[in-house]
Amino acid sequence: MKKIAVLGYGVVGSGTVEVFYKNKEALEKKVGEELDIKYILEVRDCPDERYRDKFTKNFDDILGDPEVTVVAEVIGGIKYSYGYVKSALEAGKSVVTSNKELVASKGAELLKIAKEHNVNFFFEASVGGGIPIIRPLNQCLSANEIDEIAGILNGTTNFILTKMIKEGMGFDEALRIAQELGYAERDPSADVEGHDTCRKICILASLAFGRHVYPDNIHTEGITKITLEDVKYCESMNSVIKLIGFASKRGNDVAVMTCPAVINEESQLSGVNDVFNAILVRGDAVGDVVFYGKGAGKLPTASAVVSDIIVAAKSHGTSRSMNWEDSAQDFVIPYKKLDNKFYIRAKADRKTVEGIFGEVRFLSRDGAPDDECAFVTPVINEAELEGKCASLDVLGLIRVLDY
Amino acid sequence: MKKIAVLGYGVVGSGTVEVFYKNKEALEKKVGEELDIKYILEVRDCPDERYRDKFTKNFDDILGDPEVTVVAEVIGGIKYSYGYVKSALEAGKSVVTSNKELVASKGAELLKIAKEHNVNFFFEASVGGGIPIIRPLNQCLSANEIDEIAGILNGTTNFILTKMIKEGMGFDEALRIAQELGYAERDPSADVEGHDTCRKICILASLAFGRHVYPDNIHTEGITKITLEDVKYCESMNSVIKLIGFASKRGNDVAVMTCPAVINEESQLSGVNDVFNAILVRGDAVGDVVFYGKGAGKLPTASAVVSDIIVAAKSHGTSRSMNWEDSAQDFVIPYKKLDNKFYIRAKADRKTVEGIFGEVRFLSRDGAPDDECAFVTPVINEAELEGKCASLDVLGLIRVLDY
Repeated sequence: MKKIAVLGYGVVGSGTVEVFYKNKEALEKKVGEELDIKYILEVRDCPDERYRDKFTKNFDDILGDPEVTVVAEVIGGIKYSYGYVKSALEAGKSVVTSNKELVASKGAELLKIAKEHNVNFFFEASVGGGIPIIRPLNQCLSANEIDEIAGILNGTTNFILTKMIKEGMGFDEALRIAQELGYAERDPSADVEGHDTCRKICILASLAFGRHVYPDNIHTEGITKITLEDVKYCESMNSVIKLIGFASKRGNDVAVMTCPAVINEESQLSGVNDVFNAILVRGDAVGDVVFYGKGAGKLPTASAVVSDIIVAAKSHGTSRSMNWEDSAQDFVIPYKKLDNKFYIRAKADRKTVEGIFGEVRFLSRDGAPDDECAFVTPVINEAELEGKCASLDVLGLIRVLDY
Repeated sequence: MKKIAVLGYGVVGSGTVEVFYKNKEALEKKVGEELDIKYILEVRDCPDERYRDKFTKNFDDILGDPEVTVVAEVIGGIKYSYGYVKSALEAGKSVVTSNKELVASKGAELLKIAKEHNVNFFFEASVGGGIPIIRPLNQCLSANEIDEIAGILNGTTNFILTKMIKEGMGFDEALRIAQELGYAERDPSADVEGHDTCRKICILASLAFGRHVYPDNIHTEGITKITLEDVKYCESMNSVIKLIGFASKRGNDVAVMTCPAVINEESQLSGVNDVFNAILVRGDAVGDVVFYGKGAGKLPTASAVVSDIIVAAKSHGTSRSMNWEDSAQDFVIPYKKLDNKFYIRAKADRKTVEGIFGEVRFLSRDGAPDDECAFVTPVINEAELEGKCASLDVLGLIRVLDY
């Protein structure tokens, strides 16, 4: 009999308990022994009568109980979770988590502690909700040198952009609907400013390249400046705007960024709509593979947490976690050294634009004012672009990515 | 140091050796010790000078060498591979294979032998080439009860259908081009008659439902009867024709079939073109997830074989294989008991059709002869449909599936 503790009884925590008890019999068959949730750590007074005997407000009950071999951390944030996870690993318990903030900022350290104590630290649910991506990347694609990862990693912003692209809705209205539907929080900044995507691409990049990529080192832009005018111009070149997190191997270094990007309709990422996520992985042997599904939500995320619990329970006593080393900041190329094509919308005439950028591809849209000009630049260095744009009244600027 | 033997030096075998040596250093880092290929079993005289010292024609060299802990079987077929794999497992060596025929017909037995000898039998490469699907299904989605799996599992037929749909090319011409490009064999029957897809859906169904689904029990139809007329009619209802393998849980039993299917353009499977494969998995917690990539080819398949080698090498001495039990034939519902909607093209008038089927959805296409009638039936039992069609001059009949 393996005993489990669940830390947190919010959306993901209650989903985890629900999925666990719904499929308990099948899960036990997979592990080959009985399983049960012994504790649920929750500060509120017994939020669910069914599990009255399992609730505790005291983490030490769990930490001190040698019967508990697997701990599922689904509190979120860093404040409490970091200490809890660290102590649990040090006490010889395997930990699974859905906490992308924790993994993105402390992954290397926690993986090291797990290894030292011969236990596991799994975090399939931290990226892509229920979509299998962490373990496939770590195991099924392990024969490959990973050249590129690019993903639509945030359902909220993808929902908003889909509304803008498919229904011609403005950003503010689309955000309001996302909030009404519970897809966006009252303070939506973590989503719309790109921070959530940034954490997730950092986790994927760390895993793919074997060295920790920290969110603080990553250039991150959100979607708040995207307008319907930009959407229309992109449509005219059979492209859509998506919020992309990408990580790209460049020799011994890596380019990692979170930004809105113009993506051609031919791309497997262009047709990913609403709250769905998709992650494209480009390996030297396998070519492109894409993983698609619901990137968030109670049950999809719980699916990944419970699956990790199963693997952790089955493999307790062996350290099977993935590994990445800690890293120096200079591992990530400063974004201003990167080259890209850019979509630019500006108050300017074509002659001025050509005077600055040379030959560009001009775009058009219905109802454009006479003094507006939209175009795609040749490949150009980011810092150089900044200089060129200084003399231009730029209304919109989005990278054109080739995924 | 872990020593590996590769059985077979054809397309996949030479790809396996190539990927292994290309990324050897990184692979060794992942396993945590040195790795090498000690033997390559091949009946031809040294087909590759670079590996002159590794070639052998005698399997007993490998079987009797206690240094070899992982055997990669990439010969294909059953004739030799079955005996080799069985003996290797019994000798305490882990085996990885790309051989779908072997896994589909002998999977339950070989998994049992692997378990009894505390070794592993992995077969990620047997379905979807380099696309991670076996391990994600077995591990990352293990919290779920799997309700449905549906996939485009054969690149050759998908290439042919894409040519028909996108370029209006006839079946014979599309097949000829597929053969010229090396996508189809000179005898293309295993692909175009659906047997390859059948084996793959049997493997996925066995894994998802925990009991062996044998190819002999599965209704299998290929794409040789699909015409451009059918393609056009389906286009008129925003749908495409794809060769689908599906497995669907129905209470304690399962429905499994390989057949061409009419798929709506809204489906994630409809946009999968050319030689690409995609597999949709529907779980009770995660909802729909889709895995997409190259389903065949030297390096993609080698990617999966080498990744399995890595996991096998890393976990040697523990049995971590998936599991499915052997099963009685009555586990799979006879296909004539199933219900479906059907697309039918017939020499008939609308009145006759309505007399037989009641209310149907009529379809149209440019240039249809007056005596041709195409329509979609209501949901109807397969056996009942057969009866109804007996009095009709049926020119085309395809299931309409909702994935």
